[in-house]
Amino acid sequence: VGSGAIGGYYGARLAQHGQDVHFLLRRDLQAVREHGWRIRSEAGDFTLPQVNAAASTAEIGPVDLVIISLKTTANPALHDLIPPLLKADTLLLTLQNGLGNEEFLAQHWGVERVLGGVCFTCINRTGPGEIHHIAHGLITLGEHRGGLTPRLEQLATLFQASGIPCNASESLAYTRWKKLVWNIPFNGLSIAAQEATTEDVLGSPALLESAVGLMEETIQAAKLLGHTLPATLVEDELARTRTMGPYRTSSLLDFQAGLDVEVESIWGEPCRQARAAGASVGRMEQIYDLIRYAVARRTAASR
Amino acid sequence: VGSGAIGGYYGARLAQHGQDVHFLLRRDLQAVREHGWRIRSEAGDFTLPQVNAAASTAEIGPVDLVIISLKTTANPALHDLIPPLLKADTLLLTLQNGLGNEEFLAQHWGVERVLGGVCFTCINRTGPGEIHHIAHGLITLGEHRGGLTPRLEQLATLFQASGIPCNASESLAYTRWKKLVWNIPFNGLSIAAQEATTEDVLGSPALLESAVGLMEETIQAAKLLGHTLPATLVEDELARTRTMGPYRTSSLLDFQAGLDVEVESIWGEPCRQARAAGASVGRMEQIYDLIRYAVARRTAASR
Repeated sequence: VGSGAIGGYYGARLAQHGQDVHFLLRRDLQAVREHGWRIRSEAGDFTLPQVNAAASTAEIGPVDLVIISLKTTANPALHDLIPPLLKADTLLLTLQNGLGNEEFLAQHWGVERVLGGVCFTCINRTGPGEIHHIAHGLITLGEHRGGLTPRLEQLATLFQASGIPCNASESLAYTRWKKLVWNIPFNGLSIAAQEATTEDVLGSPALLESAVGLMEETIQAAKLLGHTLPATLVEDELARTRTMGPYRTSSLLDFQAGLDVEVESIWGEPCRQARAAGASVGRMEQIYDLIRYAVARRTAASR
Repeated sequence: VGSGAIGGYYGARLAQHGQDVHFLLRRDLQAVREHGWRIRSEAGDFTLPQVNAAASTAEIGPVDLVIISLKTTANPALHDLIPPLLKADTLLLTLQNGLGNEEFLAQHWGVERVLGGVCFTCINRTGPGEIHHIAHGLITLGEHRGGLTPRLEQLATLFQASGIPCNASESLAYTRWKKLVWNIPFNGLSIAAQEATTEDVLGSPALLESAVGLMEETIQAAKLLGHTLPATLVEDELARTRTMGPYRTSSLLDFQAGLDVEVESIWGEPCRQARAAGASVGRMEQIYDLIRYAVARRTAASR
């Protein structure tokens, strides 16, 4: 459900390896129906000329596993999209960004169905039915309720067998917060600091101090929520970011292209969870407010 | 010392009422030497055709009282400007913005000389030798060392006798923090939120939340530093701001005109003092970083 870059790439990998995959498409429906998927990937290019491309989940019907890779701003659409796909034991796996997505699925379709995956990858849609998988690709899977279960291990094995690096985490929340330690500062400053690249952030003493401050707040919030992240995480993430060059975050690309920005899942929900746990996250809240304002202002200007 | 809008207006009022005032000028030197001051004021227009206009403090020589109204970013120039004005009992009164100015004067010329004044006013320079005093005008004076002293009362009386609303505060620091409760959010967001007016801030739910958060951090920092501000201050300041219309803060005017922005006295020093007192001021630090970056970026772009 949601066959953009992430859903398209991972779905195509599963289909390539013989899984019965059905893609829910909107923008690329016609192109994929006619030509299938064309995938450029550092793990090997491939094409899938014939794929199951659907315009509605009613066309697809009940399935074993729903992979949800809609942009989180489109989550309200799931109210209509999910029900036709469900049978008693259908699993729901969200590969979406940030916080709040598992909770949303659990609230509406039962906590026992819900798994999440955190994608550490760089994948772009380059044209209709065309995807470029540029680097990395690890998915860390976890049960929304936590713990390592047989079905979780099974799912990780299934992904691995389809050429997708994959592991299972006892704590999905730990993994999500760990990823946020990068996304909150770098996606955040990329919009709040006048459309800055990662290089702009690292190259400015003020923005670097800001990035470190945001990382520390995120780590402290995670800790109060029970997730003690590695002591070297700030340095590790800065070192990794230094290798990226003048990288424009996905949020900045969305912002500049006039697309929805995942404000609530990347900043809003983390702020709310941190606050509720008694964490002091003033930098994070300030960034959240400035991004909400920038997005609202851009939307108003484009009307 | 520093005869811009503030120094020019208050100096001209003192001169109008018979005080022996010497103005140190740079930009307006020629105009004031030729035509004196032309003041439009809601408290009554007036002109001073003949004034003592100096290009250096050596021309002026030792005085009883030095009124310092340079922009705080020019404070290093005081190293050269102050000494020619000093005799044993010369008082130094800074009417500058934010924090750190009294400390600077005390460090170099002795704590016993230093007084400060917080100006609640709206005054613009409108042309060479021309000043427009638009509204308000109260100066709250205080001893840097605190307390009400005879010389402080005497100075307040002198200002009052020259048509300047003036009172004396037992705690200058209290008064400075109280003013920062407005300046930190509104001057801050005016630059950090893409050149926003006060009306833009009040009209955006995100920026209003941000302004309130910044005010609360400032009040909490002041409290930890021993200054308990009025319980209704946030509401009072918001109500007052609502009457301003689409007001552009002085920091925004400076920023847009390519002039120096008083980053350290309005945000940097308050952040440092708050931190040292154990206050949690993440929003304030985030705003400080974004403004430093915006100013550095503008400066780099204009080269």
